[in-house]
Parts: sequence; structure tokens; C-alpha cells
Amino acid sequence: MADPTTSDARHGRSDRRRGGRTGQAAAARGIAQSPRRRSSLPFLALDLLSADQIESIHETSLQVLREIGMEVMLPEARDRLKAAGAEVRESRVTFPRELVESALETAPSSFVFHARNPANDLTIGGSAISFGTVASAPNCSDLEGGRRTGNEVDFRNFLKLAQVFNCIDFISGYPVEPIDLHPAIRHLDALHAMAVMTDKPFHAYSLGRERISDGIEIARIARGISPVELEREPSLFSIINTNSPLKLDVPMLQGILEMSARNQIICVTPFTLAGAMAPVTLAGALVEQNAEALAGLVMTQVVRKGAPFIYGGFTSNVDMKSGAPAFGTPEYMKAAIIGGQLARRYGLPYRTSNTCAANAVDAQAAYESVFSLWGAVMGGGNLVLHGAGWMEGGLVASFEKFVLDCDLIQMIEAFLDPLEVDNEALGLDAIREVGPGGHFFGAAHTLARYSHAFYAPLISDWRNFQQWVAAGQPQAHQKANQLYRQALAQYEQPPIDEAIAEELAAFVRKRKEEGGVPTDF
Amino acid sequence: MADPTTSDARHGRSDRRRGGRTGQAAAARGIAQSPRRRSSLPFLALDLLSADQIESIHETSLQVLREIGMEVMLPEARDRLKAAGAEVRESRVTFPRELVESALETAPSSFVFHARNPANDLTIGGSAISFGTVASAPNCSDLEGGRRTGNEVDFRNFLKLAQVFNCIDFISGYPVEPIDLHPAIRHLDALHAMAVMTDKPFHAYSLGRERISDGIEIARIARGISPVELEREPSLFSIINTNSPLKLDVPMLQGILEMSARNQIICVTPFTLAGAMAPVTLAGALVEQNAEALAGLVMTQVVRKGAPFIYGGFTSNVDMKSGAPAFGTPEYMKAAIIGGQLARRYGLPYRTSNTCAANAVDAQAAYESVFSLWGAVMGGGNLVLHGAGWMEGGLVASFEKFVLDCDLIQMIEAFLDPLEVDNEALGLDAIREVGPGGHFFGAAHTLARYSHAFYAPLISDWRNFQQWVAAGQPQAHQKANQLYRQALAQYEQPPIDEAIAEELAAFVRKRKEEGGVPTDF
Repeated sequence: MADPTTSDARHGRSDRRRGGRTGQAAAARGIAQSPRRRSSLPFLALDLLSADQIESIHETSLQVLREIGMEVMLPEARDRLKAAGAEVRESRVTFPRELVESALETAPSSFVFHARNPANDLTIGGSAISFGTVASAPNCSDLEGGRRTGNEVDFRNFLKLAQVFNCIDFISGYPVEPIDLHPAIRHLDALHAMAVMTDKPFHAYSLGRERISDGIEIARIARGISPVELEREPSLFSIINTNSPLKLDVPMLQGILEMSARNQIICVTPFTLAGAMAPVTLAGALVEQNAEALAGLVMTQVVRKGAPFIYGGFTSNVDMKSGAPAFGTPEYMKAAIIGGQLARRYGLPYRTSNTCAANAVDAQAAYESVFSLWGAVMGGGNLVLHGAGWMEGGLVASFEKFVLDCDLIQMIEAFLDPLEVDNEALGLDAIREVGPGGHFFGAAHTLARYSHAFYAPLISDWRNFQQWVAAGQPQAHQKANQLYRQALAQYEQPPIDEAIAEELAAFVRKRKEEGGVPTDF
Repeated sequence: MADPTTSDARHGRSDRRRGGRTGQAAAARGIAQSPRRRSSLPFLALDLLSADQIESIHETSLQVLREIGMEVMLPEARDRLKAAGAEVRESRVTFPRELVESALETAPSSFVFHARNPANDLTIGGSAISFGTVASAPNCSDLEGGRRTGNEVDFRNFLKLAQVFNCIDFISGYPVEPIDLHPAIRHLDALHAMAVMTDKPFHAYSLGRERISDGIEIARIARGISPVELEREPSLFSIINTNSPLKLDVPMLQGILEMSARNQIICVTPFTLAGAMAPVTLAGALVEQNAEALAGLVMTQVVRKGAPFIYGGFTSNVDMKSGAPAFGTPEYMKAAIIGGQLARRYGLPYRTSNTCAANAVDAQAAYESVFSLWGAVMGGGNLVLHGAGWMEGGLVASFEKFVLDCDLIQMIEAFLDPLEVDNEALGLDAIREVGPGGHFFGAAHTLARYSHAFYAPLISDWRNFQQWVAAGQPQAHQKANQLYRQALAQYEQPPIDEAIAEELAAFVRKRKEEGGVPTDF
């Protein structure tokens, strides 16, 4: 087992800016991107509903939990809930108010999510905001190759992008599903790749007890820490999607049991599409989301008081003509913002997303994404999943969209940068120097600042029309394609201690030799 | 002169919903768009800076006005400012604090902007938000015709779109400059077209005393009211762009003198591009914007205490590599939001814009526009100019972008619609009816609401990938093109009293016979 002191030294824990400098060095060689940074909201998140309205959603969801309850499909989970005070009839569990309230008391309002490179540790909660990759898409696409089924090569390429782009704070899951890896061992190869190819914190799927346990072990080995240290330092997160409405299935429950027992991070995200798996009214869908999230919270705190928990919001609407899910809609924005109000009401960290339903990286993809981000940021989201690359309501991870989204994230981080309003910035002397009718291009105040005064975009083309025509009329998605190729070319595997790399490889080899996780297909 | 009572009856003033029903009837025949509505912010606008920071911008701009002052190029304007307490040395005017403070006391915090159809009257101020067309582009474009110099046919086609789309509240100016109309009579034909082809409130340019006087007269005749009534009911607005830094030119000052004397609406919008016409720091650019806007405010209130005034914000940055203006950037968003804080500090209505610098209706056009709108909405903008159709930093009015922006505006208006959170909406009974593991498609709660539950987009394509491919992989700008053609086809001139139409035509004919406005080229 690795010595934690050695581990600290290995990872340069004494120099918190190491990741930052690495990022800047990479930028000097390749894509001119924003430096690595930590963002937080410099303003209060938006209260779209009144406190009374938030209370009525809260009270109605407590009533749902008390009177209707949840289907809890794992007997062990039911037993533990019952022991904690829930009522159990067959698979149905109802939750008294006190059980929910006591869980709300013990869940932490913020915590640190640890990466193998401590410079990439994330604070989850408060006003901090972090952005992750796309996750769980069954397909991927780029301009040259078109739309194709997920595979290991594309999976690894997305990990490279996640490592190269400074604005990506964490790996949300498999950016695209590597379908060509057998399900028995897919999680081993995929998590191994995440742990080695990137040094940012990552996610493991709650697909039964063995897979999530393997994920925890890989996260622990990658950080070079002991099981005891792991329990002090959350180093892995897992999304729990309820089977909305009001159902928690066996593999997800096993995920909570394993993860919370070891003080790892659980984010419960009900998939409450209004009109399909939830009431057609947004208020009703939010009641259901809230009830399911609180049920998940109770489960984590029953397993281990104080276990890190994130309130996940994913409420959107469906197209009532076709039943197709819609994203980045006005309803989505409202739900994202109100979800944040509920999370703040409870003092819980909040997870939201950057979504769109577009089939092409066109204007629709961009406006749905910025509307999503508007909801995420003004809602006070702490963790923005699917931050970069999500298309087609999650069916596709797009390489071009990934880069486009990195530009959007960088813009938001620049927007969130507090503005300097000191005497120098107020610029009275510069205004006096230039005077009426002049211009500021040559002013001393300008010359001292022009190179870093403004956000420099990755993609936006600000050439005039004539220059742009002469350049072949490139559109945003074409520039994004070129940048994604460039990012792949500049990727370098982040340094990893040789002993840790060997231990990781050995663990994966052993688990494969054992047959991985039995599958029934 | 028309009798106001008759005028009321003619315009159906007793039925405030007339415009609404007309819009719905049009929708039934053509494009399925949102009904005509009035939007307002259901939440507080965002405070990005602290009150102290806002005060330091305020105080520094007062210092600019006191110590540096403005070049005021019209002698009559200088005389009136001097009589009111300003100091004048040659063309330079400096403003004592008391003069600014007294102007702030008399300017109204809100007022009604009257249209010839009273159903289209706008409240300007408070939490109300209204969206206008693109204005002042020298070129226009569409997919078939490409980019071309502005002309009367395209100008009139934009007016048709402005009338057809319910979300367009006012005409911001000439959507595209009808270059083929001689400058001596261009304003007459263009304003005549606005007054007849639409029944929404509109703008006249402050290009000298005669043109703005003609504009006021056309607005008055179109409403069928007397000069005295016109002074009670602001019926025209004019944008005053300062020659930043710190200069007010002759035609603009003549505009203020004429408009404010007759109690018409002046919106002073400094064109303060940080790094070019304003300090490279955003705080400095905002100091300059604020000083220039306050100088314009003083001018209006010196002419007539209580004259309606709108604080205009347009601060953005330039690309420091090329000097090209940038829009929809992080800096632009911050400036839009802080501009709103300043306007609220003064209790003045606030004008902002929907901008972008893109050369094509691609992802860039969409993300820059939504970022702009994010700034406009969260900044509490009351009047959003260039709401639909603006491209290339204002050099092009795009027909496809117009429709795309209408979709964005409709989405924002749907987002601003207060959410229902009553017992019915909370949906406890629906959740009980469906129960765990079911779905809501067939629930009574859903069936009663599904047809109007969610925003129906104009453009967004939510078909799945296979259906979308089968349809020829249409992109957002192609759908927008088809909708703009459809909107032109469904345009009908709004009803106008025959006597008024004749009076308007006679006025324009007479002014043309007089030679319009002499030009020196």
C-alpha cells in the first residue's frame, strides 16, 4: 500500500498550482486556451420561485414519500431503511418526515472531490462550479467519420480531449460507451484508461456491486492511498438514476450501499421528463424529482451519516407530439434554476447539465446549450455534467460539440471572473489622456493591458465578411473540427508514478483473469 | 385634426386584447408561433457588482463630467446647458454634480410608448421587457440572395416580418438601410412604410432637425392625435449615439432638442467599445458610458423636465488583434448586466441589445446571441434593440437570423412566464394515480394539459437522427429560411383608418414636393 507522504510528494501536493502550470505549458505548445482555473459564482444564484412556492414543492414531495413512497428493489436496502424508521410493505418503502429531516441534517453541504493530481481536486458545494465531459452516449460523431457506434478508440480520444482542455474539471462517465469492450470487463478497461490517461477526478457507474467496487479500488490505487485514507477523502463519484417514477433498482441501490459505506460521492439524479416519467406540469415534475432525490439522500445517510451526497436535477419536458425528450427549453431552464433553489433550501451541493437535442452542431445545438448553461449557472449548479460534447439528447457524443462547449465553458468562466473596479480599472486618467473625440488604441492604459484584457475565443470568427469569404466561409463546427484534431495531436499522458501504474495494471489484469463481472448475455 | 374619441373607437382602444387576438388568428392561418404577450421579469435583475462598486463608477463618471466634460457641437445646445448651470468653454461643456442630480430627479422611471394600435402600446421601465427588430444594417442577406446592399424591397420585407411575428414589440429603426431611396427623402418613405405596414411603435433617426420633425409628425398623424395629445403620449423614440469618447454631434443634439421639447422618447446609447472608443478596462468603459448617458440625460431634462429618457448600454470589447468589434462575449454580458445596475441606481428605463459578430447563421451566431440575451434579461433590460436579425456586428440584417431570433425571444418569454405552483400543478393526485414504475402519457392530468403544457419552438428539430436524416438533414438556418418565406406570404397590412392613411400620404407627398431634406452630396 502506498505511503501517503510519498504520494503527496509524488503528486506535488505542496504546489497547488502544478496543474495550472502544466495547462499553461500545454497551451504554449498548442491550442491557445484559457488557463486552468477554479470558478465560483460572484453573485447569488437566482430565486425563480418564492420561498413559499419552494416550501410547497418540499412539502408535497414529503407527502409523496410518506403516502406513496418508493419501490426499493433490493431487499438489503429495504432492511436498512426499515431499521432506520421507514415503513416497508413488500418492495414499497414509505418515508416518515423525520427520516428525511435527519438525513438532511447529516449530509455535508460541501466537500472535496479528490483527483490523483491534487491540483485537480474539486470543491463541491457552496458557490463553486465545475464542468465535466459528456457521458454515457451510445454513439459518437465527427465531421469526417460521421455518426458511429461507440468504441474504445473514440472513447480514448474523448479522454484525451478531457485532459487537454483546461476547462474540463472532471470525467462525468464514459464520454462514449466503448461497445467493443465486453461488458464483463468494460468497466475495468474504461476506468483504467480514465485513471491513467487523465489526472482529473472521475466517475464510475453503479451497475451492481462488483463493478462499483472495482471502480472504488481503481480510484484508490490511482491516488496511491490506503482504504482508510480513501474513506477520509472522497475520490470517486457515481450517478444514481432513479427509475422514475418512484423506483430505485437493484444495481443502483448496490451502488449507493458500496459507495456511501466507503464515504464516496453519490449523486442521485431522477430522470423526470415532464409528461412522460413525471407529471406534465413542471411543478409536479419537480415534486417527483425532489421526492426521488430525497429518498436517495436518505439511503446514503442510512448507510453512513455524513456520506457525501449531491442533489441531481435533470427535469425537462418531452415534445408532446412525438414523445421525444426536449432539452435546453424554457421549461428546462426553469427546472434547472428551481432545482438549485431546492438544493440550497437543503444545503446540498447541486448537479445540473449542459444539454441539447440537436442532430447537428448548428445554431440549434448552440442555443439549446447556452440556454442549458444559463439555467445551470443562474441555478447555482456546482457540478455541470455533460458539460462538453452532448448531442441528440444524450445519444451522441460529438467531437466538434466537445470543443464548441469548451469555448462556451471558457466564456462562462470568464463571465464569472470578478470584475476589477479599482482606481486603475476605472480609468479616469486614461479618459483624461484621450479626451473627447480621440481613441484609446494607443493610450498607455490600453498598451499595458491589451494582450490579456479580453477573453480570446477558441472558435468565434471575428474577421470581417470579406476576409471570412476569402478564407472559405468557415463555420463554427468546421473550426471546432480542426481544434479537436489539434487537441488530440497535442495530448500527452499526465505523469504517473511507475509503482502506481503497475499496481493499477495488475489489479485490472487480476480482475480480468477472474472473469470480470459475470454477464447474462 | 383627428378627434381622439373617434381615434379610440377606430383603434379598438376599448379592447386591449385586439392585437392579441389578431396575432392568434394569424397564427391559425400560418406559422404556429407564440401568442402576442407582454413580458416582465418575475425575478430581480442581477447585481453583478456591489453597491459600493456601482457608486465608484457613478462617482468617477460625475468626475469625468465635472473635470473633462463633453464636446457639445451645437451652439444652441451649449446655450441651454449653460443657462441650466453647466460651464461652457468654446465647445466644451462641463457638468456640475447638481445639474446631473437634478436631471435624475425629473426623468420618469417609466412611461408608456404609444403605438397606432393601442394593443401594441409598450410600458417602458420597471420589470417590463420588450423586443425590437434589427436596425441600421447597411446590408442584408438570405440563403438564396446572399449578402447584398440594403434596398427598399428588403427593407419592406423586414417590416412585414416585424408585423407578422408576435414577439416583435417595436421597430428599432430601419431594419436594413434602403440605400436606393435618395437620402433627401429616404426618411419620409421609410417612416411612412413603418407607420402603414405595421401597427407597432417605431423609431426615427436623429439626423438633423428636419428629419426628426418629419418623424414626429408621421408618428402623430399615424395615431390620429393632436399635437397637444402627442405631448401627453410619447409615440416615437430616437436613439442618440454619442460620438464616443465624450462628444455629442450636431444632428444628434438637434434630435434631443426636437424630441424632448415635444415629450418624445430619447434613448442615449454611448458606443463605448472598450479598447477603442473607451478604456480597455470594462470598469473604465462603463465610467465613460455612464458619463455620456448622464450628459445626454441632462440635455433632455434641460429641454423639458420629465421628458421620457432611456439609459442605453452598448459597451463591448474589440478583438485586440484586429480591432474588430466583438459581441456576445463575456465582457459584453458583464457590461450589459452592470449597465442595468446603473440604470436601476438612477431609476431610469434601460436599453440593451441582442448582438453577435458572426458571418453566418451558425453555432457562433446562436451562442453569441443567447449570451447577449442572457446579459439583457439578467441585466433587467426594458428595451432590447436589434432583438431579431442582427449579424456581423450590425453590418448585416439576416432574414434567417430574424426568424431564429424570434424563436430565441419566444423561448425567453416562455422562460419569464411565471410558473404555476398551485395544488393542481403540484400534481400529487397524478403521481398517486400513476404510481411507481408507471408513465404519465395517459394520465388525466397529462391529457388535460398536454397540448399547451410546453413551449413549441419555431425551429428546433427534435426528430430522432434517423427521421432527421430521412428529411435531408435540415439545419436550423434552413428551417429559418423556410419560415421567413412563409411569414412574408402570410403578411397582411394591419387595418388603418382611410382618413389617416390619406393624411400620411399627403404629408409625405408635400414634404417630397418641398424637396425633402437638402443633402450635400
